[in-house]
Amino acid sequence: MITSPSNGRIKLIRELMAHSKARKKEGVFVAEGVKMFLEAPENEIREVYLTERLYTRLKFEKELPKKYEDCRLKLKEVSYEVVADDIFERISDTVTPQGILAIIDRREYQLEDILGGRMNAIYMVLENLQDPGNLGTILRTAEASGVDGVILGENCVDMYNPKVIRSTMGAIFRVPFTYVENVREAIRIMSERGISTYAAILSEDAKEYDAFDYTTATAFVIGNEGNGLSEEAIRLSTSQVFIPMQGEAESLNASMAAGILMYEAARQRRHKEKQQKRIFSTQTMPEIK
Amino acid sequence: MITSPSNGRIKLIRELMAHSKARKKEGVFVAEGVKMFLEAPENEIREVYLTERLYTRLKFEKELPKKYEDCRLKLKEVSYEVVADDIFERISDTVTPQGILAIIDRREYQLEDILGGRMNAIYMVLENLQDPGNLGTILRTAEASGVDGVILGENCVDMYNPKVIRSTMGAIFRVPFTYVENVREAIRIMSERGISTYAAILSEDAKEYDAFDYTTATAFVIGNEGNGLSEEAIRLSTSQVFIPMQGEAESLNASMAAGILMYEAARQRRHKEKQQKRIFSTQTMPEIK
Repeated sequence: MITSPSNGRIKLIRELMAHSKARKKEGVFVAEGVKMFLEAPENEIREVYLTERLYTRLKFEKELPKKYEDCRLKLKEVSYEVVADDIFERISDTVTPQGILAIIDRREYQLEDILGGRMNAIYMVLENLQDPGNLGTILRTAEASGVDGVILGENCVDMYNPKVIRSTMGAIFRVPFTYVENVREAIRIMSERGISTYAAILSEDAKEYDAFDYTTATAFVIGNEGNGLSEEAIRLSTSQVFIPMQGEAESLNASMAAGILMYEAARQRRHKEKQQKRIFSTQTMPEIK
Repeated sequence: MITSPSNGRIKLIRELMAHSKARKKEGVFVAEGVKMFLEAPENEIREVYLTERLYTRLKFEKELPKKYEDCRLKLKEVSYEVVADDIFERISDTVTPQGILAIIDRREYQLEDILGGRMNAIYMVLENLQDPGNLGTILRTAEASGVDGVILGENCVDMYNPKVIRSTMGAIFRVPFTYVENVREAIRIMSERGISTYAAILSEDAKEYDAFDYTTATAFVIGNEGNGLSEEAIRLSTSQVFIPMQGEAESLNASMAAGILMYEAARQRRHKEKQQKRIFSTQTMPEIK
């Protein structure tokens, strides 16, 4: 059991929690909590740390809530180290730590991997997004709405920031994403491949977001929380869209705007699918004499 | 100038920041930052506190960004007190305080005030919502999407919590809201008045959220972040709706779900309005001979 705060592993975990450079150098990230541990693919888990309290609980308590039972099972498949409760508290990023964290291998995608998927894919492009909660929520909503991949400008907050990871609710393990040096270049490449790119802007000069057909290959381009998108990103996008606002509201929260756009695309795609099913079932209906 | 942390006003402000009971007792709340001060209706501002630094800046700097110019103008209309910078830091709820906060009168609405508006009003009903950021974002999005009022169960987080206020981005001054002892009773009253209430639930047994017509009087009922709505709130609602999710996503963030519903209603209403305009303009078009 690790009982010293100056233990090398503990020091490294603190580094990995605090600094994106350290995470990048080691090619890993830190996922905290029972849910995240359960959602992490087994072959990508490099190390696991448990508090003494959780370890004792898993070892001796007979009846546990389902997620702890699942935790107990999964811990049979991976190696782990026990950490004194007070030491764990120092490495945890949460106020009330659940007592488990895992060091996980990063999956590195290239822009080509992300764009090389299905024909009518749907993408999010994020330029200079800064708030960890917003990024995590966008990834979580991206998964739920059926987005194929997320492309981030290098100035965006780090996806492996512990706050981002927490607010993805596990989507970090499932939605492919990549950082690019130049978002404008990525927009250009997407346009060349016939992906319609929609820059979300606050000007009412743009068209209302629901005036477009998002059932073919689509990318939504979202900018910084305070300053929106760069002029160039707007100019390079196929179209500019805005989300109508009433009252004296000046803007929507960035993740909210992203979510409304993603779910409008999802809505249109569901409707189209249903329509096609209806047409198909009409055509193949046996004739009644 | 206030220079002592044991000054009575400073102590009271700290109380008001930290405790919803203190705020309730005094019938006020604390709004921090330049933007919030500017958005606060003048006749509702009870007290204003400035840091020495901001005071000096407003007094002596000739060219200031627009919002500081506006701040300077507004400070001519209200009385204020200057506070030593380090004392202000102790009362501020933010990491980098902007140097201004205001004590503001609460506007108290009753359920009757909220329900007594336009015919086709749209409402949000929140049961046991706990996260300050979620509540603030819901109010901000409510204003932007044209919601008439928000009804909160008494177990919800306090709307006057400093974190909530910040994330409303000023909507707290403009969207009417009220806390009710019993959310189920409020749902029942709304139903009686012909308002369709839609309980947002995670079960696919419910109908997809976009299968309903939200252009008549509508209320969306949103539950707790972790546990959703109570059985009773679900049962008392006119219909149950769910937002389809792909991948392995188990749920959406509560404010995201609320935003998607509110903007679906806004979208339907805009479309209906446009259709009616079209019909009207066709009918009144002069005949061409």
